[in-house]
Amino acid sequence: MNFNLDKSIKILERTPAVFKTLFYELDANWANINEGPRTWSAYDILGHLIHGEQTDWIPRAEIILGDGSDKTFEPFDRFAQEKLSQGKTMEDLLEEFASLRESSLNQLKSWKLSEEDLDKIGVHPDLGEVSLRQLLSTWTVHDLAHINQMSRVMVKHYANDVGPWKNYIRILKDL
Amino acid sequence: MNFNLDKSIKILERTPAVFKTLFYELDANWANINEGPRTWSAYDILGHLIHGEQTDWIPRAEIILGDGSDKTFEPFDRFAQEKLSQGKTMEDLLEEFASLRESSLNQLKSWKLSEEDLDKIGVHPDLGEVSLRQLLSTWTVHDLAHINQMSRVMVKHYANDVGPWKNYIRILKDL
Repeated sequence: MNFNLDKSIKILERTPAVFKTLFYELDANWANINEGPRTWSAYDILGHLIHGEQTDWIPRAEIILGDGSDKTFEPFDRFAQEKLSQGKTMEDLLEEFASLRESSLNQLKSWKLSEEDLDKIGVHPDLGEVSLRQLLSTWTVHDLAHINQMSRVMVKHYANDVGPWKNYIRILKDL
Repeated sequence: MNFNLDKSIKILERTPAVFKTLFYELDANWANINEGPRTWSAYDILGHLIHGEQTDWIPRAEIILGDGSDKTFEPFDRFAQEKLSQGKTMEDLLEEFASLRESSLNQLKSWKLSEEDLDKIGVHPDLGEVSLRQLLSTWTVHDLAHINQMSRVMVKHYANDVGPWKNYIRILKDL
C-alpha cells in the first residue's frame, strides 16, 4: 500500500490551484470543448468536483466516523453539475471549488485521524464495504484522474491540426 | 481545423506554472514514481520538456522560417534528459523549464507569424513534410499530453489503495 494521509493532503490542497493556473481567464473555448455528446468539458469536470466536495468525500467520511449505526452512504449524483453550474462562469467555479476544498481539508485535518480511524468502515450503495483509508485514497486519485481526463479532452481538440505527428501522441493514435 | 496561434500560446504560457503548482516542494515521492522500468516519472517528463525547448520546437521553427535550402530537422533525442537532469532537483527543473519556455515564447511572438508563415514547410526525419502550423499545434498538445501522462502515473500509485473504487476509475480498471 502506498497511501499516506499527509502525502494525500498535499495533492488535495493543490488541485484547485492546478485548475486555476490552467483555466482562470483562459479562452472559454478551451474550458468548453468536450469529446462529443454526453461527454465532459473542463467546465463540467469542475462542477463535478464541486459537487463532490458538497456531497461525497467529507460527508461520507462523517458517516464512517460518526455514531450512527447505518453506515450506508447516499448515492452520488454524477450529473448534478448540469443544474448546479447553471449561470456560473468558469471563474466562479474555480473560486467555489477552491473555497469548498479548503473547508473540506480543514475538516479532515481537525479529525487528526489515527490508523484505527482509517480502518473504519462505511457502506457504499453499489460497492459494499469500504474503509476510510480507501475513501481518502480515492478522493486523492479522483482529482488526478480528472486532470487526466481534462488534458485528454484538450489534446483531442487539436487531433487534426498536428498532421503526421498524430502517430507520436498516444491519445491521438487510436482516434 | 481548430488551431489558432493566440489560443495555443495561452496554453504554452501556462504549462510551466501548472507543473510548478503541482510539484514545487511537493513530497519527492510523487515526482519520482513511474509506471515501471523504462517508464517516466514527472521528474523525467520535466527533463524531456526542457530538452524540447532547447532542441525541438523553436529550433525547428527556425529551420522552417530560415533561408537555408535544407529544411530537414535534427532528430530529437527522447532520452537526453537522463544525462541532462543529473544532479538537479525537481525545483531546479521547474525553474529551468519556466525560464526556457518564456524565452521560447518571446521568440515565437517576435516573429508575428502570418497565415502564409504557418503554411511553410520543414522536413521531419521520420514523418516527412510538416507545416509550421502542425509543429506549433504539436508543441501545444505535447504539453497537455505530458500533463495527461504525469497524472496517469500518479493515479496508478494508489491503484491498490482505493479498494473497490478501482472499478470506477478508468485508468485503473484495466490494471
